[in-house]
Amino acid sequence: MKITSLETYDVRFPTSRERDGSDAMNPDPDYSAAYVVLRTEDGHEGHGFAFTIGRGNDVQTAAIRALEPYVVGRDCSDIGALSRGMVGDSQLRWLGPEKGVMHMAISAVVNALWDLKAKREGKPLWLLLGELSPEEIVELVDFRYITDALTPGEALEILRKAEPGRQERIARLQADGYPAYATSPGWLGYDDDKLRRLCKEALADGFTQIKLKVGADLDDDIRRMRVAREVCGVGFPIAVDANQRWDVDTAVQWVEALAEFDPWWVEEPTSPDDVLGHAAIARRIAPIPVATGEHVQNRMVFKQLLQAGAVSYLQLDAARVGGVNENLAILLLAAKFGVPVCPHAGGVGLCELVQHLAMFDYVAVSGSMEGRVIEYVDHLHEHFVDPVVIRGGRYAAPAAPGFGSTMRPESIAEFSYPDGPVWRGADG
Amino acid sequence: MKITSLETYDVRFPTSRERDGSDAMNPDPDYSAAYVVLRTEDGHEGHGFAFTIGRGNDVQTAAIRALEPYVVGRDCSDIGALSRGMVGDSQLRWLGPEKGVMHMAISAVVNALWDLKAKREGKPLWLLLGELSPEEIVELVDFRYITDALTPGEALEILRKAEPGRQERIARLQADGYPAYATSPGWLGYDDDKLRRLCKEALADGFTQIKLKVGADLDDDIRRMRVAREVCGVGFPIAVDANQRWDVDTAVQWVEALAEFDPWWVEEPTSPDDVLGHAAIARRIAPIPVATGEHVQNRMVFKQLLQAGAVSYLQLDAARVGGVNENLAILLLAAKFGVPVCPHAGGVGLCELVQHLAMFDYVAVSGSMEGRVIEYVDHLHEHFVDPVVIRGGRYAAPAAPGFGSTMRPESIAEFSYPDGPVWRGADG
Repeated sequence: MKITSLETYDVRFPTSRERDGSDAMNPDPDYSAAYVVLRTEDGHEGHGFAFTIGRGNDVQTAAIRALEPYVVGRDCSDIGALSRGMVGDSQLRWLGPEKGVMHMAISAVVNALWDLKAKREGKPLWLLLGELSPEEIVELVDFRYITDALTPGEALEILRKAEPGRQERIARLQADGYPAYATSPGWLGYDDDKLRRLCKEALADGFTQIKLKVGADLDDDIRRMRVAREVCGVGFPIAVDANQRWDVDTAVQWVEALAEFDPWWVEEPTSPDDVLGHAAIARRIAPIPVATGEHVQNRMVFKQLLQAGAVSYLQLDAARVGGVNENLAILLLAAKFGVPVCPHAGGVGLCELVQHLAMFDYVAVSGSMEGRVIEYVDHLHEHFVDPVVIRGGRYAAPAAPGFGSTMRPESIAEFSYPDGPVWRGADG
Repeated sequence: MKITSLETYDVRFPTSRERDGSDAMNPDPDYSAAYVVLRTEDGHEGHGFAFTIGRGNDVQTAAIRALEPYVVGRDCSDIGALSRGMVGDSQLRWLGPEKGVMHMAISAVVNALWDLKAKREGKPLWLLLGELSPEEIVELVDFRYITDALTPGEALEILRKAEPGRQERIARLQADGYPAYATSPGWLGYDDDKLRRLCKEALADGFTQIKLKVGADLDDDIRRMRVAREVCGVGFPIAVDANQRWDVDTAVQWVEALAEFDPWWVEEPTSPDDVLGHAAIARRIAPIPVATGEHVQNRMVFKQLLQAGAVSYLQLDAARVGGVNENLAILLLAAKFGVPVCPHAGGVGLCELVQHLAMFDYVAVSGSMEGRVIEYVDHLHEHFVDPVVIRGGRYAAPAAPGFGSTMRPESIAEFSYPDGPVWRGADG
């Protein structure tokens, strides 16, 4: 089970050409993947990636390549040990610690290791994880810096409490899937007609929540929120997402101005690093709930957001914190504090990944889908070997072995930067 | 004043061979610089670097190189605008935001721009900054995400209040320098005899504070603290530094066991991301003060440490946050909360840089040296064109134009990794 090679690819999709994904902070993203493939001596492959939005994807790819000596030539059966070896390396650690480019690189490799393991065992990752014993799950978690909020003993208790009923929940997922919400209607770069049309489509497709990007211009936001509310009707959950655009006071004033349209949650009102700022905003805009997490760097910041009562919905990301292992810690922290996890997705491949984490949470941690929903964005799925399947506004439970992270080789070739056909001759 | 080129160098010093710099988290650092040189069309140069401790310095160097399009071909007279352009770039921002490898890269470039500007104006940076008007200084600061703690108006008030007496303070610095403390005696890898000898030397050299690394083994720490206390005498300030080794409860227990030796401050007791953890530790070990900052990623985390009453000493780093401009914000935040700034130094070149920031703080922000002291480590200064000068345990005010960041070309050549003479054939 030795890993014999680590290959990286700088893959970029020119999404900015259509303003897909435009929000108040990110007007022109080119959704990108710093992509990694691990191979074993017995011929298996594990795929993973860090998601970026364009420039800097080369730096992210270089960071993944720097991890080669930590995995190549090593036995990959103990992912916990490999993960701790990278996260804990004293010299690499200086570049974070546990944040930013280096941590996202570790995430890509750790996720590739899980993809490899799940493929070898012939199971989708959510099911593989959901069939581990509570003790095995706890063994995968690094409790450093979070024991003031969650001890291994408490984690074990949470997992044991959720053990009865696992099989029924697995069967329910396989039958009915997991609820999704739609972000595609609400990108800032779309005009009102497109917003109206996409809201209608989301309703027709069976989604039970949508999300609008806000934060660039208040008058625009009021107008767009009114359009969405008209189409969706009173009481239909419409979340708003400011993508970190505001300072604390601005956030409060802006949300007050949108309050009449009954926002379901307010997402990323300010810097993802500002636990106390989120807590102040949450207090001042209550009962409107605050959601955040896609840019939260690690379990220590999630811990504090929970301790401070700063978030009502925790939006973990599959490829920003240190991969599956750190996300297990985050799911357990959320369960400890009774906060529902509603993963961030979209970009390229994030839907494919997070569905496994949410479904594992349902099977083995929280045991509930109550108040929980996975973000869904209808972009770029065609580039994956096992794209997500949405039926009636719900994620169908993946059946294919692995983590869903395998990009089609022809897509990697076509969108490789700067030499793939899509970029050659383009003003990158 | 156009910048015509950006060159990078991966420079590493094999410090781990002597266990210089060893602490509980970093047993074998190879002090390194991801080094950058900017050149202008009129023949001036600006030098800067990100400090790392070895592996990953190549990734850090690649991140600096990725900033080339943001500076080359640009006019460098408005550093605030150039800095905001890099920090605020929507695509690069995804790699942080404002943290880790990409933010440290921006730091290196921003500091190089300041070095360039100070050399052009023929002044040491501390004096150049100390002669700016309050309005000019406020103009350099990015207040995004900190206005709930410090508004531009409040910053202006702080700076105006310190305006009277600037000239006297400049003269006092030029005559007497700024107090330093010595970390060299206390590295974990040194035996008791070396500790004892180095403590004696520090006293003889006129240092008024020393620091010991702790956190690997409590019995060792008690023994070493006893040795240091014996040599230095009752009441002499001996700080301890755990380098993030502990969780909250462990920190409290460990410090309680060392309390009889009267630690001056407890540095980095836990994760630099854990504001609430630092606050809890500070409450529980009071009146022993908590210090932190060398790994704090940006002004938002410093803001919260101050808001939460989590730190009694703020240890800014010259090359981790976004360079001089973000450090101006941090100095102003510290002044607002009345917390003394005692910069982190050591490594390679950090002493050369931070002295300028502490001296500027004295001249134009806090107006005080009370309770303030700059870390000093006697390593690797010989590689700089204008090395720090320590007299009687104090930093002499630099007189040479620039930021002190210029490494000698022969050092860059000798220690370049992996092809410099020091590394060729070595097991890097």
